[in-house]
This record gives sequence, structure tokens and C-alpha cells, in this order.
Amino acid sequence: GGAASAGLTEEQKEFQKVALDFATKEMAPHMAEWDEKEIFPVETMRKAAQLGFGGIYVKPDVGGSGLSRLDTSIIFEALSTGCTSTTAYMSIHNMCVWMIDTFGNEEQRRRFCPSLCSMEKFASYCLTEPGSGSDAASLLTTAQRKGDTYVLNGSKAFISGGGDTDVYVVMCRTGGPGPKGISCLVLEKGTPGLSFGKKEKKVGWNSQPTRAVIFEDCVVPVGNRLGAEGQGFSIAMKGLNGGRINIASCSLGAAHASVLLAQEHLTVRKQFGEPLANNQYLQFRLAEMATRLVAARLMVRNAARALQEGREDAAVLCSMAKLFATDECFAICNQALQMHGGYGYLKDYAVQQFVRDIRVHQILEGTNEVMRMIVARNLLQG
Amino acid sequence: GGAASAGLTEEQKEFQKVALDFATKEMAPHMAEWDEKEIFPVETMRKAAQLGFGGIYVKPDVGGSGLSRLDTSIIFEALSTGCTSTTAYMSIHNMCVWMIDTFGNEEQRRRFCPSLCSMEKFASYCLTEPGSGSDAASLLTTAQRKGDTYVLNGSKAFISGGGDTDVYVVMCRTGGPGPKGISCLVLEKGTPGLSFGKKEKKVGWNSQPTRAVIFEDCVVPVGNRLGAEGQGFSIAMKGLNGGRINIASCSLGAAHASVLLAQEHLTVRKQFGEPLANNQYLQFRLAEMATRLVAARLMVRNAARALQEGREDAAVLCSMAKLFATDECFAICNQALQMHGGYGYLKDYAVQQFVRDIRVHQILEGTNEVMRMIVARNLLQG
Amino acid sequence: GGAASAGLTEEQKEFQKVALDFATKEMAPHMAEWDEKEIFPVETMRKAAQLGFGGIYVKPDVGGSGLSRLDTSIIFEALSTGCTSTTAYMSIHNMCVWMIDTFGNEEQRRRFCPSLCSMEKFASYCLTEPGSGSDAASLLTTAQRKGDTYVLNGSKAFISGGGDTDVYVVMCRTGGPGPKGISCLVLEKGTPGLSFGKKEKKVGWNSQPTRAVIFEDCVVPVGNRLGAEGQGFSIAMKGLNGGRINIASCSLGAAHASVLLAQEHLTVRKQFGEPLANNQYLQFRLAEMATRLVAARLMVRNAARALQEGREDAAVLCSMAKLFATDECFAICNQALQMHGGYGYLKDYAVQQFVRDIRVHQILEGTNEVMRMIVARNLLQG
Amino acid sequence: GGAASAGLTEEQKEFQKVALDFATKEMAPHMAEWDEKEIFPVETMRKAAQLGFGGIYVKPDVGGSGLSRLDTSIIFEALSTGCTSTTAYMSIHNMCVWMIDTFGNEEQRRRFCPSLCSMEKFASYCLTEPGSGSDAASLLTTAQRKGDTYVLNGSKAFISGGGDTDVYVVMCRTGGPGPKGISCLVLEKGTPGLSFGKKEKKVGWNSQPTRAVIFEDCVVPVGNRLGAEGQGFSIAMKGLNGGRINIASCSLGAAHASVLLAQEHLTVRKQFGEPLANNQYLQFRLAEMATRLVAARLMVRNAARALQEGREDAAVLCSMAKLFATDECFAICNQALQMHGGYGYLKDYAVQQFVRDIRVHQILEGTNEVMRMIVARNLLQG
Repeated sequence: GGAASAGLTEEQKEFQKVALDFATKEMAPHMAEWDEKEIFPVETMRKAAQLGFGGIYVKPDVGGSGLSRLDTSIIFEALSTGCTSTTAYMSIHNMCVWMIDTFGNEEQRRRFCPSLCSMEKFASYCLTEPGSGSDAASLLTTAQRKGDTYVLNGSKAFISGGGDTDVYVVMCRTGGPGPKGISCLVLEKGTPGLSFGKKEKKVGWNSQPTRAVIFEDCVVPVGNRLGAEGQGFSIAMKGLNGGRINIASCSLGAAHASVLLAQEHLTVRKQFGEPLANNQYLQFRLAEMATRLVAARLMVRNAARALQEGREDAAVLCSMAKLFATDECFAICNQALQMHGGYGYLKDYAVQQFVRDIRVHQILEGTNEVMRMIVARNLLQG
Repeated sequence: GGAASAGLTEEQKEFQKVALDFATKEMAPHMAEWDEKEIFPVETMRKAAQLGFGGIYVKPDVGGSGLSRLDTSIIFEALSTGCTSTTAYMSIHNMCVWMIDTFGNEEQRRRFCPSLCSMEKFASYCLTEPGSGSDAASLLTTAQRKGDTYVLNGSKAFISGGGDTDVYVVMCRTGGPGPKGISCLVLEKGTPGLSFGKKEKKVGWNSQPTRAVIFEDCVVPVGNRLGAEGQGFSIAMKGLNGGRINIASCSLGAAHASVLLAQEHLTVRKQFGEPLANNQYLQFRLAEMATRLVAARLMVRNAARALQEGREDAAVLCSMAKLFATDECFAICNQALQMHGGYGYLKDYAVQQFVRDIRVHQILEGTNEVMRMIVARNLLQG
Repeated sequence: GGAASAGLTEEQKEFQKVALDFATKEMAPHMAEWDEKEIFPVETMRKAAQLGFGGIYVKPDVGGSGLSRLDTSIIFEALSTGCTSTTAYMSIHNMCVWMIDTFGNEEQRRRFCPSLCSMEKFASYCLTEPGSGSDAASLLTTAQRKGDTYVLNGSKAFISGGGDTDVYVVMCRTGGPGPKGISCLVLEKGTPGLSFGKKEKKVGWNSQPTRAVIFEDCVVPVGNRLGAEGQGFSIAMKGLNGGRINIASCSLGAAHASVLLAQEHLTVRKQFGEPLANNQYLQFRLAEMATRLVAARLMVRNAARALQEGREDAAVLCSMAKLFATDECFAICNQALQMHGGYGYLKDYAVQQFVRDIRVHQILEGTNEVMRMIVARNLLQG
Repeated sequence: GGAASAGLTEEQKEFQKVALDFATKEMAPHMAEWDEKEIFPVETMRKAAQLGFGGIYVKPDVGGSGLSRLDTSIIFEALSTGCTSTTAYMSIHNMCVWMIDTFGNEEQRRRFCPSLCSMEKFASYCLTEPGSGSDAASLLTTAQRKGDTYVLNGSKAFISGGGDTDVYVVMCRTGGPGPKGISCLVLEKGTPGLSFGKKEKKVGWNSQPTRAVIFEDCVVPVGNRLGAEGQGFSIAMKGLNGGRINIASCSLGAAHASVLLAQEHLTVRKQFGEPLANNQYLQFRLAEMATRLVAARLMVRNAARALQEGREDAAVLCSMAKLFATDECFAICNQALQMHGGYGYLKDYAVQQFVRDIRVHQILEGTNEVMRMIVARNLLQG
């Protein structure tokens, strides 16, 4: 993990080590099984939460660890080397808790955060709909005000954790068309009218369930609304700034692990009477992979710092980091697979799981096409 | 299938249509299930064999269709749009039958080819070993001559069909080190001492079993040797020339199908109130994909023609075609997946299976790194 | 030139050899000087015309060679190895003569073609304007009908040969807005009101002058109009189909020459005590370059055949060929430059001139962005 | 220059502004002329030296500015937006002065540094030979000890400033084969036996002369040796660590300027009736360029910090930064040229000069192939 710790403070190196140890001992030995059997490793995540990883950038008074965005990135990168899919879910969970911590009132913070930080309960982020991705105008789920409650109707697609989690942070329309008509409600599992689609079969990310979430006349108390009416889209986007750093960090971990696996394979495996590592072409490709991994890491950490400092360019840097890191890290993992030859295609070897797991990072929390759109808008309006 | 038929003869267009129909009706509806349940679709392949696809470039007197390499490529491309994994196995089977047809004596041709052409029996190609890929010198499986028999010891890795197939075309060492010490034996399932490793779990190619093949004092009649002693490596390489065109053709089919899927998805799916297809960026990327697919197809067909005509540059053109087509087609399929957004990651959508299935084409029948080596050698020694 | 002649007829190989010899003896020794001193090598081109290269795909009765588009591509590829810039101008000249030959009446054909085919006179193609590239609607040059004449006003930009050539094939607006309002007039140097901008300083293409062409009340006889009124844009586009194949062929020649230069440099030049060619990384990169060159050549020749046969998909194949070949060949030349190390940056070495000369092929005769647009339109409307 | 200043200290922003102003006012208006006429802009560089840019990371007691490596990178990036070629020479000059400042004794520091820091005199770095690039073992220039002098024989190739500069920092062999036999001597112009080759004609970097430097029985006092005998290769390599950051910084400046030029061109230039900037494809490509520029800048600054702090991984990070930044920035400039359409090919537009000037950054101070070798060695021996 040398390169990943360069330039960090002693404290950062310490919890990086804690996270790497956890990844190595508690996650890596099980990642293939969780993938094959589609196990949501609840108990392992609770152990991780005991180390403070259930609410990393959540304030301590409600059970969070109170760490920075950079610290968070370091931790997710480290955990992701043990199981990218599980860590990616944890990163979404963290984002949800942060949203409640940041935009919730005191009562809401106390009600929801502690059991989420300890991962006694799990959270899901509900923005995407079957007919809309990053497109606020098309959001169709409605919440109609009736006295002290909202009545929720509609459905959400591709929800990580959906059906297995306890707390749903739902963007829904309480007003007119466009982003200003959207609010953010927190629903709990068991609410009448809340149901779930079938568990999706996926290329990867199999240690976390994905389901549609369906609302049929769900009654939600007004006291479950985060922030003001009409603030929902803004809350969702602010959550995603961090979410994009987090998911990009998971890509870093997968790529880091894959580079190490490739390096080892090249050293151990022989062809034409000598180690594969003696092939100059493979050496140079490995050098390119390592170089691009360093660049990706710098992009992610730079965005994390900007977000932490509340810099004006933070949102665009988060988009750039997500675009760059998830594209480059997929290419790195895929090249690492290639370096394994036929072994890279077998499920006995971890590298293929990293490839499958991070493929979706280029798609979710805003596709990389949407990232380009955000960056372009910033450049041409600036 | 417009672009795929441009410039073909009427006869070629006709069996292309037959193959496309078979792919659409008999394969595509099942490809997801064969993948999920790891079914080797024996009966479907036998139906394909009734259309002449079990021994496409095998001579008619032993049940083959007697078609050219270009014809063969056209057929495999078409079939592959219905299930790439199944077609890829069929292409290996065809290569084995061709080897027996071409290098076997009359008795061997009559004994083996008819039931293979009809796919009553299935064949496996056994070259790769756990410790050697494209490296003849490292081939360790030995066949010791004892009277009228060889006693075979050693093992083969990554054998397509291994364990489920009936006829094994095995490269083994009958002489000294190096390629000249290698011979080619044909083994039948049931031979005492012939056993198989566990069925490998793979990223794709799940409709064909992959196992190690193990020889422990297997007694094989001398009459099962193809060609002369010491000719085995040459036979294996000649088989692979065609094999590389075939596997590259399977990549073309996967890419073609993926472009069509992406095109349809872009047209149907809406975002920000209009079809995705209205996005210029996606239009241009689609244009690049279609352009590169045409280039890949030309490379494959050009190599097929060269091989058919016995041109001197055929082997290097086969390597170039395999390198170019399998690399480009993977990139095309992967980009088509990206164009599907989140849906591309779900097993309900076919595009992800094409991505998973063709990933291994960059690795097998000589990795694409070995293809570069062959091409470079040709350039720098030429 | 081995690979470039594979699969050709004996006749094609013969004039390929003639063109290669001409390139080697009459062009290559001068290409650096023509570049440095910005010489338009009129006499050399006339010698080429004596070999039939002034009107290659023009009908013989007016002095043309009557060869096919594929033949033409083979010749331009071969000539371009000797000087890409000069050959590229010749390809534009050929396109103009073909337009007169094809769309002109008998009188026009006899008046213009013979002296153009012999390159006694030279032609320029005048479509692009300062404010419009591939955009017919924006074409502002007007030709107002007055009796038996048109009065031409406006200006054209980036005209190859402009100022040094004798015959100008000009697209101008004789009717309403849009493509249907455009006609095609042939102007001769010396026409009052015809003037030229300054000679542009360019990155490459220095053996051909580029100037703006300005029309101020130029009086042109109606008898100089090619085809009917309103047919001009269609004529221009039909010319460009061939033009795109031609310019792409020039890219092939530059890339072919660059691969040979790189190959030789790697073999001759030593580092760390052995030839650079012993570096596996460079070997493999060279293999990629050669592979991509073959693919580019197949694309170009395939489009040439389609155009010759008048196939429906010819226009889109021409666009694909131009996009693919000019992009890939630039990358090949640029990589060949890199393989030369510091020498690649010196004007004493030819490789840098190929890089500079073909850079503009990705831009002119429709930018490669416009090629993507054409291909995409075809895919999504098909 | 927004993005380039993000995260800098106030002081850094201040001298960044000074450098940008100088680039805009004193360099940019002349860069085309310096290129065309091959002018070495001595007076302009002296003005820059008055701002402290002649010995940026040289200690103040001998006239240097005493700034850090990061500061230096910021300054070179800024200056390079005005003229990349001139700034690149200045970066080499700075490297030489730093070598004398760091490895020279007090007498040497006082003798050479002040007039170099003020750019009254100019320096050249002499390592590469006609028969060796990054290959110490092949270094053939010899310095034979005779009493208090060395007698120098041999020649150096591709020397920036060679013939026009005053002070030559020469690596030569004073001992046995290999790096340990190399020493570093400082020669002054006018030394008998010191002569120069012809001025090379180059693709770019035309504002700095490049010549071979030839030594024929040059007598150099022992007092002109930097460091101990045998330390020369180590001194040369330490110089290059900084040199690589510097040259990569020059690439950043060129890319930054090119992105701004492209952005402006897209906004101003119209096609099909609207600004080019309305094309989504171009928007997204621009977003990719900006993203990759940020990544390249982070790589360079990260390496600068590591070198400043004397971190163990500094050398490998410098190689990674040089590899990544010079490759990516060339691609950015080249894409910016493409966005200019035909204008990008004209010398009236600056973008093409940035492309030509930075092309050599991928080659010099160790080719990018050598960078891969350094990184690979570090990974596989680590």
C-alpha cells in the first residue's frame, strides 16, 4: 500500500492501516463467496461500523466519526481492496447518514443517525426512477401533503440495498415541475404501501441487493422531511458530491488491488522459461497502470480537499474526479485481468471480480456522460 | 444485418441469412438461461449441425459442408449474435474436425469426422497446459511409445468442452524438447486414465464447460496419431490460424449485436424529455463503434481469404485479425453497455453477456500479446 | 511495399510499382526542400501526369486514364510515400477534373479536361468559405444571373492551389437558401475580379499553396456552369466521396512510409548496446502500427470498391474510411516519430514531415467530426 | 488561469500572476515571430531573470530566488503559456544553475551562478551523445586527467542552446565503464577545441538553437569539475529529476493555453448557424481535456512536492509526472488544434505552435519509454 499512503499525516496513515487490515482479514477472504451467493454481509459491515466506518464524515454527537472527506476517501479506498461491492454500498450508506446529519433537524439527527452509524440499521438513497436518471425534471414520484403527512406514490429504480435496508432517503415531488419542486423524505421499512421489486441479477455488485422501491399511498409524517419543501434536489446533489468522491475511492481500491495482483502474477507465472515479469511490454504496461492509478488518486483526493474546504470549484472537481478515476481504474483492472491470461477469466482469481464490480462505477451516481456535461457546462458558462 | 452482408455473393448472403435466423430463433431466446444455469446446449448445437455448421470447412465426403474460410467466418459471425459462448465452442469443435479431416489418414477421417460433423459427438482441442500457454518448449505432457500404443501422462488446462466432450485432440511430447518433439493424438472419452478437473467458474463462456484434462497412463493406439511423429505442433498451429479467424468472427457477431442493442436503447429510452439518441455525443460514439466494427470485419474477412488462398502472409494476417477484432469488438461491446446506463449492468439485458463472453477472446488461442509477438517477428525478420 | 500489394491484380501491382518508383525517384529526394522552400512542384507533377496520374479516374476520351476508384487509391497511396503534400494536391486536382468530366457537357469536357489531365493546367476546388465549412446553408458566395453570364461575389477560404492554379471549380448560390440553391461554376485564372488572399503559413502541406479566393463582380459565362442550376451542392458532395477516399489514401502512404522508416531506425540505431529493435515494447508497438495500417488500408479500398460499384452504402463507407484512416494513420506516423527519439524531431528526418503533412487530413474535406455526423445520421435514420 | 491557481498559497498566486503577466505581455506577442525567424530571445529572458526566473530554485546568496520545486513548476507553467519553447530552454538553464549551486564548491558557485541567475550568461546541459540517450554505459566523451587539467574529447548531440550559450555542463568519462566512471565538468564558450555542429532544423522549439557540441582536445581546469570524480552521472540524474518536473510544467502551460484557445474558438466560431460550442460532442471533448489537464497538473505538483521534501519516492514520481503530463498535454493540444478546424493548421493561430513545441517533451530528458522503464523497475524491484 506504499503509494497510497504517500504524503498522508500520521493519523491518516493509522486509520488507513486499520481499514487495510480490516479489508484483508474480514473482507477479502469472503468477497468471492459474497459475490457468488449474493450475500449482503450485514455482520461484517457492523464490525466495520465498530471501527467508525458507518458514519465516517458524520458528526460525533450522533455517533459519527467526524472525519474529513479526504479521510473518508482514504478509508473507502482501503476497504475497497477487500471487497469493492460491499465498500461501495457502505459508501452510499455513509452518504445517506451524512445527508440526515447535515440537513436534518436535531430530532431527526438523534432519531436516525446513531443506529445508522453503528449499522444496526442500513440506509438507501432513492433518487433514480425507471424513466429518469440525472434528470430532475422527469422525477415523477409524488408526495401529496395531507395535514401532518405526505402521501407518497411512485417508484425508484436501481436502489442499492433496496428491500434489505431499513431507512430510505427519498427524493419526491411536493411542488411544481423542475428541481425546485422536489423534497426529501425519510421513510422506514415497514411503512404500509412500501414494497420492493425483484432482486436484480447483475454483472457485479452482488454483495449488495438492488431492487426497485415502490410507493403506493405510503403515509409519511411531515416530520420525516429533511430540510424545507423544495430543497430536496439540492440536498440530493450535495449528497452526490461526496458520493462521487466515495465511489471513485472505491474504484481506486479495486485498481490498487488489481495492480498488486497483476504484479504478483507476473512475478510468479512463467512462460518461455522465465517469469512473465521479464517481458518488457508487460513491464511498461504495468508502469502505465501504476502511473494512471497515482493520477486517479490525486484527482480524488484533490476533490475531497476542495469539498472539505467548501471551495467554489468543489462540485466540478468531484465530477472530474469521478469521471477520471472510474474510467481509468476500470481500464487498469481490465488490463490487470489481461495480464493474468486465462486465469484472469476464472472466478477463482479475484481480479475478474474487481473488473465486474467497478464496471458500474462509470454508470451510477451520474453516468460519466453526465459528468462530462457538468464539467462542460462549468467551462463554457464560466 | 445490412453492413454484414455488403459485398457478399448471393450464396453467402443466403447461408448468412440461415445462420442469422438460427441465431435469432434457436439461440438468442436461451442465451441468458444457458449462461445463468451453465447449460451446454447439446441439442441446439445438433440442430445447427443439421444446417451444416458442425464441420463447415470440412470436406463433404466425411460429412462436412466444404465451405471456405470466408464462408465460415460469415456463419460464425451470424451465429454469435445469438449466443457468443455457444458459437465460440462450435468454432473450436469445427477447428478440431478440420484438423482430423486435413491431417488424418482416410481411416481416421472416416472414423471421426462424420459423427463430429453431425455433432453426435463433440470435440476438444488440448494444447494449453497449466505451465505453458503459447510456448511449445514448455509442453510437458508426454506420450511414450510402447509397441503399437502411446502411454500418455500429463495434463491440459482451460479445455473448452472438457469433460462433456467425446473426442480430445491432444498435443503431447513424443520426442525431444522444442516444437519438433510434439505429436498430435486423438483420444476418446472413456479411455482409462483420462479424467477431468473441476468445472471452472468463469466470467462468461458459461454455456460451455471448461475443465482441466488429466492423463494418467492413458493408452492410445498409434493409429490415433494425426500426421507423422513430430508434426503435432505444426498441426496445432495450422488449426489455430483458422481458429483465430473463427474466434475473431465470434467477436464480430457479439459487437454487431451490441451495436444494434445500443442503437435501439438510444432510440427508445428518454432522458431530459427526449430520446437518448438525440445526444450528439452518443451519436458520434455510435458512429465510431459502427466504423470500428466495419474495420474489424474487413480484417477478419481479409485474413480468411488469405488463408483460403494459401497466401504466404496468411498466418500473420490471421494474427492481426485476431488482435484487432477481439480488442476493438470488446471496446465496442463495452461502450454499448455504457450506453445502456444502469440497464447495461443487469442480466436482464443481453449487452452485458456479450461483454462478458467476448472478454476471453483477447486471451485465448494465443493472447493478444502473443499476436503482437507474431506480427512483430514477421515485421522485423521480413 | 509487400503488404500494400497483397490481393491486387497483376495490372494493379504494375501501376502500383510505377507509382512507387516515381515516388522514390522523383518525389522523395525533394520532399524536404519543397516543404522548406514552399515550392509547388509543377514540373514534377507534369511528369506524373505523363504516367496518367493527372486524371486517373477520368475518361480516356478527354485524356484521362479511365481507371477505377480502387486503382486511384492504390496510386495515391504509392505516390504519397514520396511526398504526401504534393500527392494530396494532386488528389484534389483529380477530383476537380473528375467533376468536370462527369457533370460537364461535351463542350466543357473537351475544353477543360485535356489540359488538366496533362497538368498543363491545374485545378482548385472551391467550397469552403470563411464562415462555413461543411454547412451548405451558410454558403454566402452569390452568382447573380445577368443574361448569358453570372456575376460572382464572395470569397472562399483554405483553397488548395489557390493563386497558383488555373481553373477554379466554385460552389456558389444562384438560388434560395439551403443546398438546392447552390450551383457549380468553373472559373479561369485571369477573370477580372478574381483575386487571392495572402499565401497561408501552415504546419505542413507546404508544397502546395493555400490562399483565400476572392470574387468581386466576376463575370462568368453561363456556359461555365457544370450541370443544372441548383445541382452544385450535389456535385460538390459527389466529388467529395472520391476526395475522401483519395485523401485517406494519401494518409495510408504517409503511414506506410513512416512504418518503414521506424522499422529501419529501430534496426539500425543502438541503445544500451543493442539495436532498439530488441526492445519488446517497441516491437509490440510496431506490430500495432502495422496492424492498424492494414485495417486502414482495407477500409479505404473497401470504400473505393463500393463507390466504383455505385453501392447504396458508398457515401457512408467513404466517410468511415476517411475518419478511420486519417485518424489511425496520424497516430501511426506520430508513433513512428516517437520511435525515432530526438531524431524524429529534426527536419533532416522525413518522419516528422509525414506527421505534419497528414495532420490536416483529419480536418479537410469534411472534418472527422463531420464524418462522425454523417455516419451517425445513417445509423439512426436507417 | 482559475484552475491553475486553486489550492495555492497567496504568495504562490502572486508570483504566478507575475509570471502570467510576463507571458502575456512579453512573450505571447512574439512567440510566432521567434518561431518563424528562429530567434533566441536573449533580452526577453534577461527581463524574466530580473523577475527572479533565471535561478528560481537556486539559493539567494548567489543570485537565485530560493524558491521551492512547486513554486518553480507554477512559474514555468505560467511562462509556458506565453512561449513554450523559450520557457523550456529557461527550464534547462535553471536546471544547470541548480546543479552548479548544489554540487559546486563555494568558489564555483560564486564564479558561475550570479551571471547565470541574471541570464547575463546562458547555460547548456550536455549529456546526450549521438550514440547514446539515457544509457550511461555508452557515454563516450572522455576527459583525460593531465596535471591540473582534463583534456576533453568527444561530442554531444541535441544540445539546447548549444553554440549560443556561454556555459556548458558536460558529463564525460574520467574513469572506467559504467555510471561510476563519469564526471561533470563546466566549460566556458571560447575554450579552444570547443566547437559546434550546424543549427538543427526542427519541428518546433525554434526559439532555442539546437546544435551538436564538439570537444577536440579541450583543456579544462580540474577546478571546473562539479563534485568528485565519478559523481557526474549521479549529478546529471539529480538534475534531471527537477528537469523532468520543469519540462512537464511547460507542457501544462501549453495545454492550458490551448484549452483556452479552443474554448474561445468554439464560442466565437459559428457553423450550421450556431456557435461550435453548442455541439455536445465538442463540449464533452473539451470537458475531457480540462479534466486531463487537472490530472496532469496534480501529477506534476505532487512530484514537485515529493522532490522538495526529499521523499524516497521522488524520482519515480518525477518520471510518472513527466510521462503522464507530457503525453496527456500533447493529446490535449492536438485535440485543441482539431477543434480549430482548418484554422488550427495555420501559423496565424497559436494552437499549432503549442502542438509543435511540446511534441518533443515526450522525447527529451529521457524519452517516455525510458520513463516507463524507470517506473517499471521501481515496481518490480520494490
